[in-house]
Amino acid sequence: RQSASYMIGFNGQAADCPTTVHGLQSIFQEQEMTETVHDTEGHGYLATFIGKNGRLVILRVTALGLLTIDLQCCEGDNIVQVENLLNTLEEKLRSLLHGNIKRVKRLPALTRGAAVDRYWPTADGRLVEYDIDRVVYDEDSAYQNIKIMHSRQFGNILILNGDVNLAESDLPYTQAIMGRGKENYAGKEVLILGGGDGGILAEAVKLNVYIDQMVIDGCRTHMRKACGSVLDNLKGECYQVLVEDCVPVLKKYVEEGKTFDYVINDLTAVPISTAPEEDSTWEFLQLILDLSIKVLRPTGKYFTQGNSANLTETLALYEEQLGRLSCPVDFSKEVVCVPSYMELWVFYTIWKK
Amino acid sequence: RQSASYMIGFNGQAADCPTTVHGLQSIFQEQEMTETVHDTEGHGYLATFIGKNGRLVILRVTALGLLTIDLQCCEGDNIVQVENLLNTLEEKLRSLLHGNIKRVKRLPALTRGAAVDRYWPTADGRLVEYDIDRVVYDEDSAYQNIKIMHSRQFGNILILNGDVNLAESDLPYTQAIMGRGKENYAGKEVLILGGGDGGILAEAVKLNVYIDQMVIDGCRTHMRKACGSVLDNLKGECYQVLVEDCVPVLKKYVEEGKTFDYVINDLTAVPISTAPEEDSTWEFLQLILDLSIKVLRPTGKYFTQGNSANLTETLALYEEQLGRLSCPVDFSKEVVCVPSYMELWVFYTIWKK
Repeated sequence: RQSASYMIGFNGQAADCPTTVHGLQSIFQEQEMTETVHDTEGHGYLATFIGKNGRLVILRVTALGLLTIDLQCCEGDNIVQVENLLNTLEEKLRSLLHGNIKRVKRLPALTRGAAVDRYWPTADGRLVEYDIDRVVYDEDSAYQNIKIMHSRQFGNILILNGDVNLAESDLPYTQAIMGRGKENYAGKEVLILGGGDGGILAEAVKLNVYIDQMVIDGCRTHMRKACGSVLDNLKGECYQVLVEDCVPVLKKYVEEGKTFDYVINDLTAVPISTAPEEDSTWEFLQLILDLSIKVLRPTGKYFTQGNSANLTETLALYEEQLGRLSCPVDFSKEVVCVPSYMELWVFYTIWKK
Repeated sequence: RQSASYMIGFNGQAADCPTTVHGLQSIFQEQEMTETVHDTEGHGYLATFIGKNGRLVILRVTALGLLTIDLQCCEGDNIVQVENLLNTLEEKLRSLLHGNIKRVKRLPALTRGAAVDRYWPTADGRLVEYDIDRVVYDEDSAYQNIKIMHSRQFGNILILNGDVNLAESDLPYTQAIMGRGKENYAGKEVLILGGGDGGILAEAVKLNVYIDQMVIDGCRTHMRKACGSVLDNLKGECYQVLVEDCVPVLKKYVEEGKTFDYVINDLTAVPISTAPEEDSTWEFLQLILDLSIKVLRPTGKYFTQGNSANLTETLALYEEQLGRLSCPVDFSKEVVCVPSYMELWVFYTIWKK
């Protein structure tokens, strides 16, 4: 678990493969690395070199002239030596191929198996490395894995089942899901679904319903820049936190005829699946949406997050669902930059027609 | 150049190495892959498997129990097959190790040698993948490489010598370097250094000095959401664009006693080097800063960008430089989220004491 490996790739156009390969071999020989040339059955040149300390280099040249060098090393290896080896290889490549290079690209090392995992891909599937330097909280509740990790720039980040949910830097998220400062919440009745991180509640509301006590527990202690002291007590002068499944609560409100000025759904992102008939999360979403609109006053507003601005199909599916509610609605949407997301995020405002 | 390779790593704790390796071998045999077991001189287990179509798997188990699987494949390989192979390996691993896994992590593929390069590391050295889908402009001027690439979410992005400079989404950058809407520019004289992307000029100013005509040319055509029509003419009713080295221009202003209400330095980020005495970019920065303060009116403000919020040493060095100007100054700073940067950025406001 403590071990790490580094991968660094070069891309260069190796016009003259045998000469290039031969030129690089001498460097590996100097490093006393053991060479194995592999038979690729006509798919270019491929050799591996094993060195001291478990160092491994994979050298590839494709028929189209792409040359890649991957260097893996283990934790405890001398990073300065590794960097020097890569510098030597790059210099040699540049001198062997002189003008004949279309692009040289060296990527930052990919660290695996470290105590702190820094890779949390975006909702649209891109590889991004966070500046996370420590794990603050890591527990499994009955519902999900709850991680709170510290980022140098974003502060503590709440990660639920591998999805970045909210960082202490992410006031723009909370503002977006509350209508971007254009709403007057004074004296209004507000129902929040989800929002266990306390961010919305801390921005001043009346009633709050969510489900995972452990999210509340972790955030109360470690996300105070987001939630303030609002999660210290489940009941305040003007708010109440229900740690319950929100569906029966919503159903009870519908039965009782209880309504709200604002419903803020911060439960979960729009599911990424594009096959709604196969995915029960879409059914769940539809159920929550329908119940929420039912408890919304005629002049009320329903705020919710959508998903990554890039997941246009997913968003289109969600908007289709909005047309199928038992009560007809209109909506507007807004694209917002949430600092810790590393991708733009869509937020919806929905109201009764 | 068209070729690509994919790397996908698993991390798992392989308590019982020989059993685990043997369990996985059968999968590679079914795939008719040729196995080579390498001698690591005591640094764990390492085997490579070569398959059809130039597919390569690197299987490693360290003494500390970290198991990594890297799969490389070439452009044109069947991605569904590759995904299935990885799924099979993950399932097998989970069943072989049952409860004995601390973490399983599968990373998005790293694509190399593609026509569109999506990896533009942050200023603090992190690996981030952009949602870039095409190259709009790619030229070398006498001063630098100028790329304009299209991102689905950020619009066109200007990349100078590999550094993300400004995207069409990045109004927060322009607002930050202009004082966040707190300044009244009406009737004021403004000097902009750099800013060849036209973003600041488009936000309404008087005079503009920059140096690389090709940046202007590329941005005029491809960054219109950032610069509007302001770069179509180098001289407007209330502004003038000088495509010149700004140092002699600044010196001339000092000689003539010409002063400005605002000086906005958008030339270049604070150099990352932490050895100012060895780095002429620090000298350049000091020269520009000194000249700029000289042409600043007593009540004037000097705005500039700093660097990544994480590069605290670099920023501290810059602030040290501010204490060494020929005219004593005070400063304030602000951390801003610039959408396309994928890292928080520091901006400075400087004024005469």
